[in-house]
Amino acid sequence: MGDDTLIRVGIIMGSQSDWSTMKEAADMLDTLDVPYEKRIVSAHRTPDRLWDYGKTAVDRGLQVIIAGAGGAAHLPGMMASKTRVPVIGVPVQTRALSGVDSLYSILQMPRGFPVATMAIGAAGAANAGLMAAGILALQDAALAERLDAWRIALSASIPETPTDD
Amino acid sequence: MGDDTLIRVGIIMGSQSDWSTMKEAADMLDTLDVPYEKRIVSAHRTPDRLWDYGKTAVDRGLQVIIAGAGGAAHLPGMMASKTRVPVIGVPVQTRALSGVDSLYSILQMPRGFPVATMAIGAAGAANAGLMAAGILALQDAALAERLDAWRIALSASIPETPTDD
Amino acid sequence: MGDDTLIRVGIIMGSQSDWSTMKEAADMLDTLDVPYEKRIVSAHRTPDRLWDYGKTAVDRGLQVIIAGAGGAAHLPGMMASKTRVPVIGVPVQTRALSGVDSLYSILQMPRGFPVATMAIGAAGAANAGLMAAGILALQDAALAERLDAWRIALSASIPETPTDD
Amino acid sequence: MGDDTLIRVGIIMGSQSDWSTMKEAADMLDTLDVPYEKRIVSAHRTPDRLWDYGKTAVDRGLQVIIAGAGGAAHLPGMMASKTRVPVIGVPVQTRALSGVDSLYSILQMPRGFPVATMAIGAAGAANAGLMAAGILALQDAALAERLDAWRIALSASIPETPTDD
Amino acid sequence: MGDDTLIRVGIIMGSQSDWSTMKEAADMLDTLDVPYEKRIVSAHRTPDRLWDYGKTAVDRGLQVIIAGAGGAAHLPGMMASKTRVPVIGVPVQTRALSGVDSLYSILQMPRGFPVATMAIGAAGAANAGLMAAGILALQDAALAERLDAWRIALSASIPETPTDD
Amino acid sequence: MGDDTLIRVGIIMGSQSDWSTMKEAADMLDTLDVPYEKRIVSAHRTPDRLWDYGKTAVDRGLQVIIAGAGGAAHLPGMMASKTRVPVIGVPVQTRALSGVDSLYSILQMPRGFPVATMAIGAAGAANAGLMAAGILALQDAALAERLDAWRIALSASIPETPTDD
Amino acid sequence: MGDDTLIRVGIIMGSQSDWSTMKEAADMLDTLDVPYEKRIVSAHRTPDRLWDYGKTAVDRGLQVIIAGAGGAAHLPGMMASKTRVPVIGVPVQTRALSGVDSLYSILQMPRGFPVATMAIGAAGAANAGLMAAGILALQDAALAERLDAWRIALSASIPETPTDD
Amino acid sequence: MGDDTLIRVGIIMGSQSDWSTMKEAADMLDTLDVPYEKRIVSAHRTPDRLWDYGKTAVDRGLQVIIAGAGGAAHLPGMMASKTRVPVIGVPVQTRALSGVDSLYSILQMPRGFPVATMAIGAAGAANAGLMAAGILALQDAALAERLDAWRIALSASIPETPTDD
Repeated sequence: MGDDTLIRVGIIMGSQSDWSTMKEAADMLDTLDVPYEKRIVSAHRTPDRLWDYGKTAVDRGLQVIIAGAGGAAHLPGMMASKTRVPVIGVPVQTRALSGVDSLYSILQMPRGFPVATMAIGAAGAANAGLMAAGILALQDAALAERLDAWRIALSASIPETPTDD
Repeated sequence: MGDDTLIRVGIIMGSQSDWSTMKEAADMLDTLDVPYEKRIVSAHRTPDRLWDYGKTAVDRGLQVIIAGAGGAAHLPGMMASKTRVPVIGVPVQTRALSGVDSLYSILQMPRGFPVATMAIGAAGAANAGLMAAGILALQDAALAERLDAWRIALSASIPETPTDD
Repeated sequence: MGDDTLIRVGIIMGSQSDWSTMKEAADMLDTLDVPYEKRIVSAHRTPDRLWDYGKTAVDRGLQVIIAGAGGAAHLPGMMASKTRVPVIGVPVQTRALSGVDSLYSILQMPRGFPVATMAIGAAGAANAGLMAAGILALQDAALAERLDAWRIALSASIPETPTDD
Repeated sequence: MGDDTLIRVGIIMGSQSDWSTMKEAADMLDTLDVPYEKRIVSAHRTPDRLWDYGKTAVDRGLQVIIAGAGGAAHLPGMMASKTRVPVIGVPVQTRALSGVDSLYSILQMPRGFPVATMAIGAAGAANAGLMAAGILALQDAALAERLDAWRIALSASIPETPTDD
Repeated sequence: MGDDTLIRVGIIMGSQSDWSTMKEAADMLDTLDVPYEKRIVSAHRTPDRLWDYGKTAVDRGLQVIIAGAGGAAHLPGMMASKTRVPVIGVPVQTRALSGVDSLYSILQMPRGFPVATMAIGAAGAANAGLMAAGILALQDAALAERLDAWRIALSASIPETPTDD
Repeated sequence: MGDDTLIRVGIIMGSQSDWSTMKEAADMLDTLDVPYEKRIVSAHRTPDRLWDYGKTAVDRGLQVIIAGAGGAAHLPGMMASKTRVPVIGVPVQTRALSGVDSLYSILQMPRGFPVATMAIGAAGAANAGLMAAGILALQDAALAERLDAWRIALSASIPETPTDD
Repeated sequence: MGDDTLIRVGIIMGSQSDWSTMKEAADMLDTLDVPYEKRIVSAHRTPDRLWDYGKTAVDRGLQVIIAGAGGAAHLPGMMASKTRVPVIGVPVQTRALSGVDSLYSILQMPRGFPVATMAIGAAGAANAGLMAAGILALQDAALAERLDAWRIALSASIPETPTDD
Repeated sequence: MGDDTLIRVGIIMGSQSDWSTMKEAADMLDTLDVPYEKRIVSAHRTPDRLWDYGKTAVDRGLQVIIAGAGGAAHLPGMMASKTRVPVIGVPVQTRALSGVDSLYSILQMPRGFPVATMAIGAAGAANAGLMAAGILALQDAALAERLDAWRIALSASIPETPTDD
């Protein structure tokens, strides 16, 4: 990607360990040919990085931020507090509470700061990529076509009858 | 609203009883001067209405659909299956299960059909309005300014110290 | 089965991955000598297939539909919206939420559209087969006898005392 | 009802206090002109009544049993153990656990004894009536027509737009 | 044990698969030298066996019944309905719901029919053995002494400091 | 009660506010003519009282201790640690967590210290009284007769048919 | 309080509506004669205020920060990220999820940033005041004495026997 | 450490099996060069040890007690009842209930006896060490510096971009 201004999606996550989940979002964006950047932005360990990322998001031309985190998952909500760029949140599955902790921390935002919350885990991350594409497609007819084609192909791929492996 | 083509947000809900919650989304859009339509579209009682709404959404120029429902809340997810227009889901609080049933039915969508899930109940509905505005603001500089102003005003309204009523 | 009109039970499921669970329903129907068909019908990926299946169910002579799905499990409830043929729902176990998401999405149907919900997972699928047989047995004396015999055999198979394997 | 042999649905419940919930099932059957009987049958306080009811169900011509109970709700499952007549279970809402205790006690039946579980509370009871009607309609064309008409009327009753009370 | 009348504890369980859990109760009774019998008594598959066991419990001289079951665990509560002999319930851990279904089905008994519920799983089964011994010890001084000694030994076995294995 | 040695049941509770629940246990014992004492014994506020109560329970002739508590309900389990007298635990319903906190704190005792846990709230307290009576009845034929009579009367009190109002 | 440097406890909360809960912390500190300040610091609406409060906490001489919040309660954890001053978190009870959302958002902090979480609601807020006092008492013998006296008085206030009404 | 009086942190746990979790607290204190002792103190099996530990804590110069336990985890709360030394509680993950039982037993303390509850499991134990250090650092400038340095190093260790391992 020679032109950095093309990047309109930021995938951020609280730690390296979230990447195995969040990679699904990246893969989906690759499939749909949507450029993105990926960053580790820890709400607690690198709060200033979070601040900067949020403060510069509009000026840098970001149009969607996908934020994944687990446990007391403050990253998506704090990012939503720092920028009006739409934030999509992915609750990463956790060991003791299966990601219900991540979910509640991301979902239950107070009036004023929405986070578009996805399903817990990998399916949610993939869907975050699709949601980002759907938002960008509102002003990108070519992407809208690719997204439509992807959806049609998905439907076409479903066999009529289940098979024993 | 003399010009129907201005309507880019559809607020739909499963039943009349959801309106007391979903009205918060409408009020927020009113505050931000974003035109919208509101419809009752029951996934189970009026599935054909759902079908039609989804099938015509792109052509009618809708850019965001806000869908609220309670219990086995299939409306947001089924709408996401019928259109690539971004769907924001609002889990309506329920009597026995406090809206956790609504939440899981809306949130846990399979790979392919994201629903941008908001918090349970009224705060979630208001935030659905804000999320819709944030998406539209990506291509509407005036709305972006109004949204920024609303956010600044919200922050400015917070007193330094709590008071006994 | 030379005579397709004999098929009065349809086993449908949201995806190929549900088959390992739903096979238990099929096995039970095989055991009781009840003909059935099995289909993948995804509420979100193949909504038109769902529509057609529901719309033609009565005319095709289906008398029970067994529908299994996981996560935001909309298939059983949407099918119940499209046909008055009794729908039995099987919540497939899921990774993060153990099938509680599937359960709530299937169970918590609004007034008007019942889904006969079974236990989460394989035991629920087997019981869906039994429930279907019990319904058909109301008008099929031979099946009623086979079902009675199966039940008696089950009871007779329980030893008096547990044994260390 | 001059002819007792017409009664093919039994509505049973664990205690008088369940009647306010289970009345919804009775009302639905009244609406659809389906004769029924109603009985208090407590699994724990009147186990012999439960035994007798189950043992005679087939001979008495019952074709569906609707059983409602709350807490450690053993009535539906124990009835399913005593008869092959299809049992529909209604989890009555409870004080401390909101009916989740009722739900798990009814739903999680072991392989061999299905209970067709409905939603928690009043909506579930109404749906139990509809499910019973749907089962009977398989062999009663007039009832099938009444059920179809009821469903069409329900759909037709949904207004296009929500209204402020 | 030359004298069958010595048996005052019955360990019953819903199926052979519960034995790996319930064996802990048996082992504890062995340790405390309390005679017992063990039986498979399925509430749903062998309801008549349950009836008989309950009806004859007093006359057979049983003084405590330990009942373990999983899922819709009706055995302990139904046994409590059939006899005034104290019933101790052990919720067996389950696959989808981790034994919370078993717990609620055993614990939430209505006024009139208490079940002395133990912790979920193996520790609960062992404790059921201890609770049975504690009840019998009220009228058996030698057993009381053995129980006291067991408790003292347990306390004495705890090291002062944890060690890396 | 002129003769203190008659008292074989102690009802203890963590605070005055638990009395409205625990009174149901006392009422049941009154009904069955079982003498008892009632005490406030707070595990946290009066730990020495707990210690003394437990240490002297055997010598004072107590044969059952009924302990009710809410929240981090340590009273029943700590009492079970101090005496081999059987302890029956009653989880008092709480505001935020509906008594699930009380339940888990009472139920999930480690191997060695069983607490016979009852249902959450008032029904559980009443059942604690019945369980205590059932234990004492093992060595008190007159009480056994009263308990049998109470159970028969309970069963006889159930009407055949539910009534409106 | 003429001397601002005496203030070593900060009570902060996400919104005015949290004050009715957090007032319990203030009342407890008043009782123990511990000076404090109280501030509204919203993680999302006034993130810069949060930043400043955290950044200056050590220099201002704060030794404990009590932070209460509800829903996606990010305030306590974000404050713990900004300062090494010990942070005590109070989960405020919420409407749909009873404060379990608040609890998980506060409790489940990642390695590196502990929040000393208290019980949900008013009791938790009062205990936050006591915990703060306990920490300060480590270096303030007079406060330690007052705290000891308060604890002794609490224990002494518990009556022996419960009373009706 | 030549001077035992330097030990101001006690790490206690309910059983040897908790050590694999609680070792994380010890490791963190080692990292920060904070002396500590570690003891097995079972609330139920060694209540007198608990009593003694609590009664002598102040005189022995302990300033923080870290207490880990699982299931009906009474150790932290009972310790808080016996001493005003601040108690930090670590809920150990459990098999059936994933540590939610431990959490509720530790967290939901009544007014008067706070326990500073940490996240479930290993991360919570590590954070208990950090919280202890943060409390001690209030009066130990060198430790405060080490803690600040540790925090800065943690933040500095976070890479900008996630990597496929």
